[in-house]
Amino acid sequence: MFESLPDRVSVYEVSPRDGLQNETAIVPTTKKQRLIEALAASGLTRIELTSFVSPKWVPQLADAEELCTLVDIKGSGVAYSALCPNIKGMERAIACGMPEIGIFISASETHNKKNVNKTIDETLATFVEVCAAAKQAGIKVRGYVSTLWGCPFEGAIDPRRGLQIAHQLVELGCYQVSLGDTIGVGTPLQTRDIVRLFLKELRPEQIALHMHDTRGTALANVIVGLECGVRDFDASIGGLGGCPYAPGAAGNLATEDLVFTLHGMGIQTGIDLDRLWEAGRVAESIVGRALPGKVHKAGVRSLRS
Amino acid sequence: MFESLPDRVSVYEVSPRDGLQNETAIVPTTKKQRLIEALAASGLTRIELTSFVSPKWVPQLADAEELCTLVDIKGSGVAYSALCPNIKGMERAIACGMPEIGIFISASETHNKKNVNKTIDETLATFVEVCAAAKQAGIKVRGYVSTLWGCPFEGAIDPRRGLQIAHQLVELGCYQVSLGDTIGVGTPLQTRDIVRLFLKELRPEQIALHMHDTRGTALANVIVGLECGVRDFDASIGGLGGCPYAPGAAGNLATEDLVFTLHGMGIQTGIDLDRLWEAGRVAESIVGRALPGKVHKAGVRSLRS
Repeated sequence: MFESLPDRVSVYEVSPRDGLQNETAIVPTTKKQRLIEALAASGLTRIELTSFVSPKWVPQLADAEELCTLVDIKGSGVAYSALCPNIKGMERAIACGMPEIGIFISASETHNKKNVNKTIDETLATFVEVCAAAKQAGIKVRGYVSTLWGCPFEGAIDPRRGLQIAHQLVELGCYQVSLGDTIGVGTPLQTRDIVRLFLKELRPEQIALHMHDTRGTALANVIVGLECGVRDFDASIGGLGGCPYAPGAAGNLATEDLVFTLHGMGIQTGIDLDRLWEAGRVAESIVGRALPGKVHKAGVRSLRS
Repeated sequence: MFESLPDRVSVYEVSPRDGLQNETAIVPTTKKQRLIEALAASGLTRIELTSFVSPKWVPQLADAEELCTLVDIKGSGVAYSALCPNIKGMERAIACGMPEIGIFISASETHNKKNVNKTIDETLATFVEVCAAAKQAGIKVRGYVSTLWGCPFEGAIDPRRGLQIAHQLVELGCYQVSLGDTIGVGTPLQTRDIVRLFLKELRPEQIALHMHDTRGTALANVIVGLECGVRDFDASIGGLGGCPYAPGAAGNLATEDLVFTLHGMGIQTGIDLDRLWEAGRVAESIVGRALPGKVHKAGVRSLRS
């Protein structure tokens, strides 16, 4: 075990989008800007800023355009991204000058239908248009395949269906596909099997893991993914995300816990953990509730070394 | 990875002792009884009941004798244990008819001194007397070596020192030594190295892992230990433990999260996860605060399967 650990892994920060879209309260744009600047100051180089979805569906992110004017989304050394569900979102992303976008689809037909009111095939057809526009505009595209470890409606999901979809996303031009345990039901053996399946047909840099911590398994699954060859992991500062009023919902793996662990294993991330921890304090102050991240709670200075 | 997983692992429940001793409020004895009965009803067969320490130092466990009269500590199918720091504690344990006791020592000289006001050698000398009395009374003895992953006072600890101590505990008659990441600083690579070191010289059934979740790494470390051959893991219901008023302190790995994960990997524990979850509700009600365990929060019925 751990005979071929990498020198470095890449952390993809999703809190401004995946975290804040699940907050009940709508966070003012200037406060989002503060959070994003704190995240960038920690050394994070990949940050998902927002989502160009309808404000009707996600009022928390209705300020996407305004946020793009406040954040230095070009030339800052940070690759900012935003989700685009369709060509309308893509047009907004182009107008804002986004350097990268994300497209998302579920490996579960039922979950996909409930999420975007389209079948998986209809969603993929939408992506053809989105990706063509992205290519023309010189915008990078990252894909998401969600509910791969299990669906709240269908239960177990055949990972081969997820792999088919991932192949289609890669063919459409996605430089990477982030595999999501959307409801946080994954266990390590399953993660080994899913990652092995994907890495038989895709290169390591083509996949990422996006693990939710609903049942406390996110970091264990990430470590299994790391051992199996994955080098890209999504995380959210302080574990931000999930609905605070819905028992059972929980956010992504906390970025601080991930970075603490990777650094403790001698793996570089380019991130300053002290400054990352400070960004977590900013996140907590702007959402006004205690965040669940463990290093966030414990601090990074409690062990003399 | 995971090419030789076991069919079954053993879970050692520490909440009545390691959990409750860290609660600020003193829990009434009959409420402890309720918790212990709920834990036993879930199928847990190893439960650390209390500690025969001075009530002056740990007033939360001053009711050790009374608790032993309320709980069916013999003939119940559950191996109940209690910590004994010295011969005085041992005499109390014998008087109560305890079938098993635990003795504890730190791999850090400074931590041991602050914890029991003795050097490591003085503590081992005390254990000679305790273990002789246990042998004579037919009582099983389990050892703990704490701060193996790091000490709050000394920082890094040489695991070879911990291994020496573990050997001495085994020679004194301990059937198993539980290796503790007392302040929850361990990362997976370190866990691999520590476990490998110990398993070069001890049999798997002679060691257990006792991981605190201060930085969110407990389950990841347990999975690494499992992969490296460990078959015994300590846990605490709901993640009970740590001082709720001390930021930075956190309890053991939550038993529900451990059992959910093991069962998800096809490994038996003999525990009914639904009933275990109910025991967590009891724990929460008797301490009167929200517990941090993730499955405890999310529930076990949120995924259709």
